[in-house]
Amino acid sequence: MSIGTMDELFLHTLKDIYYAETKITKALPKMAKAAGSTQLRQAFEQHLEETKQQVERLKEVFKLVGQKAEGTECPAIEGIIEEGDELMKDVKDKEVLDAGLLSGAQAVEHYEIARYGTLLAWAKQLGHGDAAKLLQETLKEEKATDQILNKLALEMVNQKAA
Amino acid sequence: MSIGTMDELFLHTLKDIYYAETKITKALPKMAKAAGSTQLRQAFEQHLEETKQQVERLKEVFKLVGQKAEGTECPAIEGIIEEGDELMKDVKDKEVLDAGLLSGAQAVEHYEIARYGTLLAWAKQLGHGDAAKLLQETLKEEKATDQILNKLALEMVNQKAA
Repeated sequence: MSIGTMDELFLHTLKDIYYAETKITKALPKMAKAAGSTQLRQAFEQHLEETKQQVERLKEVFKLVGQKAEGTECPAIEGIIEEGDELMKDVKDKEVLDAGLLSGAQAVEHYEIARYGTLLAWAKQLGHGDAAKLLQETLKEEKATDQILNKLALEMVNQKAA
Repeated sequence: MSIGTMDELFLHTLKDIYYAETKITKALPKMAKAAGSTQLRQAFEQHLEETKQQVERLKEVFKLVGQKAEGTECPAIEGIIEEGDELMKDVKDKEVLDAGLLSGAQAVEHYEIARYGTLLAWAKQLGHGDAAKLLQETLKEEKATDQILNKLALEMVNQKAA
């Protein structure tokens, strides 16, 4: 890794989230399969389709800044996904697993919200207006997904409390 | 890891964030030392003091649910902190490093916001009202810290654009 300028830091972080998004497209089908609740499974399936579009949007951002689309290892997303994998291995009760999967998905969303927020600010700073628009679009989607997951989590909690 | 019930999942996640918070108390002094901007250094130092209080609050939560305060390895926070360590090693330009440190700190905050949000919902579900109050207090602080970091990031971006 050689980062000397804001352009290089922007590119590095773009590669980081590109790597993360491709990892997420691999994790989501496993999470959907493991989910006990139909609503949760559908939320994961829907987010998978959205994530595939976000990967395409990132390829467009690379193109707009004149760079090749490629990933760089992102230990953060590896760690977040590893925690979810451990839960899927260790939690047998379907309802408890659903709560855990939902929690893992929210950690993923928050990672993405942080990264896209940063990339959006830097794209503006560096004068990449068109790239900024695409990043803004994805950031909006990630925040909406977090809200959907929040609503599902609250419904689960309320069902249990009832 | 043996998780069969929501109580066990709650306890596991509590241990995960306890481990994460103690890691963060070790990372923040290094980040403060590496920061070039006085404002950023002060923000990290201030958040370090807050984090120490949050660790104490977590010990209180363990006590309230009748459990021993202890951590369990959290690959997510390891990964997020590892990314920050790499930046501190590789980025020589102080302004670029500050942008990277700020970005890393926001990833940490978002991880904590996700985890405390989950823990708060589960504490309510499980009838741990007093623990929920403490978790709510920390969640509010983490969101406020994210706002402070956001403001600093925008100021940096605006300074560059000027």
